[in-house]
Amino acid sequence: MNFAELERRDAADPLAELRNHFVIPKNTVYLDGNSLGLLTHATQRRVADVTGQQWGQDGISSWNQHGWVHLPRTVGDKLAPIIGAQPGQVICCDSISVNLFKALSAAFTVLDARGESRRARKQVLSTADNFPTDLYMVQGLQQLVGAENCELVLAEEAELLANLAHHITAETAIVMLTEVNFRSGRRLPMAEIIQQAHAVGAVVIVDLAHSAGALPVELDEWQADFAVGCTYKYLNGGPGAPAFIYVAERHLPTVTQPLSGWFGHAQPFAFDATFAAATGIEKMLSGTPSILAMSAVDAALDAFSDVSMEQVREKSVQLAEVFLALLDESGLAGEFDCISPLDSEQRGSQLSFAHPEAYAICQALIERKVIADFRAPNYLRFGFTPLYTSFKDVGLALQRLQEIMQTRTYLEPRFQTRQAVT
Amino acid sequence: MNFAELERRDAADPLAELRNHFVIPKNTVYLDGNSLGLLTHATQRRVADVTGQQWGQDGISSWNQHGWVHLPRTVGDKLAPIIGAQPGQVICCDSISVNLFKALSAAFTVLDARGESRRARKQVLSTADNFPTDLYMVQGLQQLVGAENCELVLAEEAELLANLAHHITAETAIVMLTEVNFRSGRRLPMAEIIQQAHAVGAVVIVDLAHSAGALPVELDEWQADFAVGCTYKYLNGGPGAPAFIYVAERHLPTVTQPLSGWFGHAQPFAFDATFAAATGIEKMLSGTPSILAMSAVDAALDAFSDVSMEQVREKSVQLAEVFLALLDESGLAGEFDCISPLDSEQRGSQLSFAHPEAYAICQALIERKVIADFRAPNYLRFGFTPLYTSFKDVGLALQRLQEIMQTRTYLEPRFQTRQAVT
Repeated sequence: MNFAELERRDAADPLAELRNHFVIPKNTVYLDGNSLGLLTHATQRRVADVTGQQWGQDGISSWNQHGWVHLPRTVGDKLAPIIGAQPGQVICCDSISVNLFKALSAAFTVLDARGESRRARKQVLSTADNFPTDLYMVQGLQQLVGAENCELVLAEEAELLANLAHHITAETAIVMLTEVNFRSGRRLPMAEIIQQAHAVGAVVIVDLAHSAGALPVELDEWQADFAVGCTYKYLNGGPGAPAFIYVAERHLPTVTQPLSGWFGHAQPFAFDATFAAATGIEKMLSGTPSILAMSAVDAALDAFSDVSMEQVREKSVQLAEVFLALLDESGLAGEFDCISPLDSEQRGSQLSFAHPEAYAICQALIERKVIADFRAPNYLRFGFTPLYTSFKDVGLALQRLQEIMQTRTYLEPRFQTRQAVT
Repeated sequence: MNFAELERRDAADPLAELRNHFVIPKNTVYLDGNSLGLLTHATQRRVADVTGQQWGQDGISSWNQHGWVHLPRTVGDKLAPIIGAQPGQVICCDSISVNLFKALSAAFTVLDARGESRRARKQVLSTADNFPTDLYMVQGLQQLVGAENCELVLAEEAELLANLAHHITAETAIVMLTEVNFRSGRRLPMAEIIQQAHAVGAVVIVDLAHSAGALPVELDEWQADFAVGCTYKYLNGGPGAPAFIYVAERHLPTVTQPLSGWFGHAQPFAFDATFAAATGIEKMLSGTPSILAMSAVDAALDAFSDVSMEQVREKSVQLAEVFLALLDESGLAGEFDCISPLDSEQRGSQLSFAHPEAYAICQALIERKVIADFRAPNYLRFGFTPLYTSFKDVGLALQRLQEIMQTRTYLEPRFQTRQAVT
């Protein structure tokens, strides 16, 4: 490891200063921002203020006084530029799962409004190794409305990419894809996919869980119809932080969604007995949002205020390239089978490797304070968050991985016992 | 106001000590726990620990190390005794709105499993002045599955109570009621309603938003089928805190719900492409829960650990009775039309009064640091939270109300301008 060279790169990094916004766990190399992003100092202060002053002292009046009632939209508008959306199309709420249910239902109402027959066009196309919850939500909707109205169709990712026109057809109602694969980090060509979907009259839902905050996303430019995403990975919103949903402006006047709770009403505080949807993106809201959780997201997003997603992407690619070069240099590249695309253009902000001992190696890394993660059946994932990951971090991670592999410490029994989650 | 007498009552109150667990806003009489319960010191400490240590230092490992992955069930089991449920039937998640959607859908699967025809039994009976979000969720489900599969039927509350058998019939699929009316505080006789529903084969969903933590609830004894409730009112979980859902043990093996996100999977971390529901109450989970928000609820519930709901109820009734007596004594009873039942048996833990100037009076009270709330069109609500409301609080509230009414300060223009929310 040439740490002098890595430190030179850090010194020349225009984003290096951003690391100071974050609480970096002591003596730790944190390469798991693709699972749970780190806390910012601003978030910690904000949570303390929302608890102590806003809730503790100002109580119920905070719904007005501290803008709680507008927080889903405030956060949505702050998220919008990060994902290439004009304001008014993004709102923060619920989980990705719940938001997918809304997006799926709403996407069908787009087709209904066009007079499409549900019998002729009911397929929701996704990939077999999409993140499971995405598939589960289609299965849940299918169970509720019947397979004659909604049918999940799965393609192998590679086959889909090899021939979009073969899979996305006049029978496709909705194309629901995650831009960056959670296992492999493969990035799908969303602009091209959306173009093909629209050419045959299908509606597209993009899951940005592993994209938002990690790389430039251009929802408006792509002409995406719907998108969902998570704020607890690269956006650093906190464990299980509220998700977001995007609806393209052109669909907002007509779509409806069935989780029509009072926060999605045109006038929630009129307490009408009949639902009348809000006209804007607020129609995608359902129940009362958690103010503690959403305030944390709001504060965390401020770390993005002075940085472009192009800069973030550039550093992300460099971090991964350095990782791959050092892996090669350390003689481990033969043993770790990189399942992520080697072409950085086709990749998100992570690198994944298959290894039969992936679980144990991950545990041994964690013991040495290199936080990576494991995904079944045998993948070791390293995530790069350009806002706080340094080039020196990458060097330290490789140095410790090399030690673990040379000493075979991962074979010790304590690393071989699986816990519920990693 | 005989404050000496009120202070004697406080001194003799077996729950008086519990007030010390709470952060009481400075110089404030807080009678709005039916809208947003107060912060406990334990919650404030816990939120700081979850932010700083758990998320900030221990990061992703906290899912195991700090029990994050089990938190929805941990909190559910802590809630269970407060609402008369054996453990394993309650889980903390999402909002009431979202949980109602699950409960409604699941309730229909109970009927489906019995071989009931949806054509013959599709009605969801509720009251016209139920909390709006409850009605909206039925409307949303109806829109999604069609009026031939789900139809909202509304009864006037008084008419329903006058003749249960007339309204709850063999055509009723689901009876969905809120035990305590959010406007009037009227408490419905749930045991009797459930008995009638079961007699004609209907399934019951109880909304405990204004009951849980305020009065004894006996879900198991009543043989309720489903319940939902909120933790941000009398349970003091924080603004927009996650809600809960109860499913009677007898239904757990068979019911399904359509918001089948990965946290409701039997093995979430196996990442299977096909949904297989958890066998227990976890099947009601959907997406990743907010750990910040749910940890706050977990800590807040500790205030209930050494108190019985019968004690809470006894003090709640006394506080309301003292309020009514002092209102009478102050000569204001004629001007404020009490829309809450005067028989405490028929009432939750609030008193509501109709007054043409309710909004302005509420604003004037708030300026004098008596926190009550307003509900459209012209109701002034006072909530009593026995864990922190003192008898002296009630005296101070009445004293300040009397001043406001005598001086007619509520007529000043600044009190007459409405804000978005109160």
